[in-house]
Amino acid sequence: MKILVTGGTGYIGSHTVLALLQAGHDVVVLDNLSNSSKTSLERVQELAGREIAAFEKVDLLDRAGLDDVFARHRPEAVIHFAGLKAVGESNEKPLWYYTNNVSGTVNLLWAMDENDCRSIVFSSSATVYGAPETMPLTEKQNMDAQNPYGRTKEHIEDMLADLAASDERWAVALLRYFNPVGAHESGRIGEDPSGIPNNLMPFVAQVAVGRREKLMVFGDDYPTPDGTGVRDYIHVVDLADGHLKALDRISQDPGVHVWNLGTGRGYSVLEVREAFQKASGRDIAYEIAPRRAGDAAVSYADPSSALAELGWSADRDMDTMCRDHWNWQKNNPNGYDG
Amino acid sequence: MKILVTGGTGYIGSHTVLALLQAGHDVVVLDNLSNSSKTSLERVQELAGREIAAFEKVDLLDRAGLDDVFARHRPEAVIHFAGLKAVGESNEKPLWYYTNNVSGTVNLLWAMDENDCRSIVFSSSATVYGAPETMPLTEKQNMDAQNPYGRTKEHIEDMLADLAASDERWAVALLRYFNPVGAHESGRIGEDPSGIPNNLMPFVAQVAVGRREKLMVFGDDYPTPDGTGVRDYIHVVDLADGHLKALDRISQDPGVHVWNLGTGRGYSVLEVREAFQKASGRDIAYEIAPRRAGDAAVSYADPSSALAELGWSADRDMDTMCRDHWNWQKNNPNGYDG
Repeated sequence: MKILVTGGTGYIGSHTVLALLQAGHDVVVLDNLSNSSKTSLERVQELAGREIAAFEKVDLLDRAGLDDVFARHRPEAVIHFAGLKAVGESNEKPLWYYTNNVSGTVNLLWAMDENDCRSIVFSSSATVYGAPETMPLTEKQNMDAQNPYGRTKEHIEDMLADLAASDERWAVALLRYFNPVGAHESGRIGEDPSGIPNNLMPFVAQVAVGRREKLMVFGDDYPTPDGTGVRDYIHVVDLADGHLKALDRISQDPGVHVWNLGTGRGYSVLEVREAFQKASGRDIAYEIAPRRAGDAAVSYADPSSALAELGWSADRDMDTMCRDHWNWQKNNPNGYDG
Repeated sequence: MKILVTGGTGYIGSHTVLALLQAGHDVVVLDNLSNSSKTSLERVQELAGREIAAFEKVDLLDRAGLDDVFARHRPEAVIHFAGLKAVGESNEKPLWYYTNNVSGTVNLLWAMDENDCRSIVFSSSATVYGAPETMPLTEKQNMDAQNPYGRTKEHIEDMLADLAASDERWAVALLRYFNPVGAHESGRIGEDPSGIPNNLMPFVAQVAVGRREKLMVFGDDYPTPDGTGVRDYIHVVDLADGHLKALDRISQDPGVHVWNLGTGRGYSVLEVREAFQKASGRDIAYEIAPRRAGDAAVSYADPSSALAELGWSADRDMDTMCRDHWNWQKNNPNGYDG
């Protein structure tokens, strides 16, 4: 298949482009490079031993540019990663998030519809669940995002579900990621956050490699075994594989589908630190800081729907996640810029 | 104050422009005229004995056009009515709704922010509540819209609330209308739906005036006294007045405010028909049809928050609503086109 990947130079995007190339698909990558580097694509192509069909530096807000990309490449499906993703920044600049994420997706959907391309795998997030009391999270749980970033994901899900309900030609997969970590085992591609990392493992990895002094642990008085927050971490290579499985499935079964992508088990902040110390052989200093507003105590997936319907499960364990994340970090201490 | 009114040639917009002119405000009307007529504005100005500051035929999707309007007129506040509003159509063409309503509002908010205009009264709807079991509806009820139209209102509310939370200069009123009916007592302006009316009273009025054969009553087996659906109808002149009160209040008290605008009492379909027969002296034939998907049995407001915080209540009763609606309909049997 010929597949357009928006945000294909980013963290999850680059790993998915690699998996698509390895599976023999033709891949057009579209990215505005606002928060990523084209270096990731060069390395993806080296790893795959194949080239992508094209790279297009286009912003989703450029409707004419999008139309042009669709007209020239005629993709059969879209995997849509492009978007802003920092929760804290979304509280400060909500209009940026609604514009880039929601209005940007509206533009993408028009370009798809007008170019007879109506299959889309969308990069959603477990953030849409908010902070419910009952675990594990199934796809039937109501959406109740607690911040503007999460609300943009929720709004885009609504829009895609409404579109699929209005026209049976649409095939939509809404993938709710839990906490993607790790890197390709080669250590050549991985997560390259700009500024202070928002997520735990990149932060831990930067402490391990000496870029940051210590890990800030936000809250040690949660009702969890060690008092720190518990999350469901998923290896990015497993996650990328989930996109291919979802794409296969919606190609045979249109309409709207929602799948949690997680392992189904949670690790606390201190357990992740411990595992990363073991994988890296480095000591990770940490300091307890106050809880962050809006953080849940515990969050983990019920991934049984993806197993039943996609034949997919996330098999790489925490030690592998840490090993691969560390391998990327130590070989690229300053990310792609190094 | 100098106030920009988007959608100011429409039904509620035109009545609000009249109220603003009567209260001495300067009014700039912006409308794309996609579903309304400029004739309403001519009549509004006759009724007010004053002219508006300007009319701008601009679409909210035209970002450059919007910027130009703000730069030339420098409004201090916006009352935002513009948008698509037919529930059935939104099920068929959801992308039109998300584009015009949500992306259009994103554009408006950028133009406001960049031109130092951060007060907005937004035309929301009781539709955002969905179909909860418990009545009356207070503003604390969760949003759970049941159709794409309602979801665009919900998404815009989310966006405005996030914006107000991010920057204390924003002053936002989210007005959740119940079922606006009636017309200005002069009979010169009123609702002029294109095609088959989506709402009850315009349908009843068109039957009374002979434009349609009979009223379709969707469901007579609801758990209500006469089996037909019960709604909270509000006279459009009371509703327009609520906008002025809301604007006053947010000018003194920024941040985000949510107010139900309804009377707090419900009328069944057959009660509305009865009242309209009395007001018009005409017989309204009707036929029972199956329930429509997504329609609630009963919906009415708790309007106590608007009374307490705005000193506003909807005082015109059902007989007045019918009298004024009929006065408009009989004088303008084919709307503004006649």
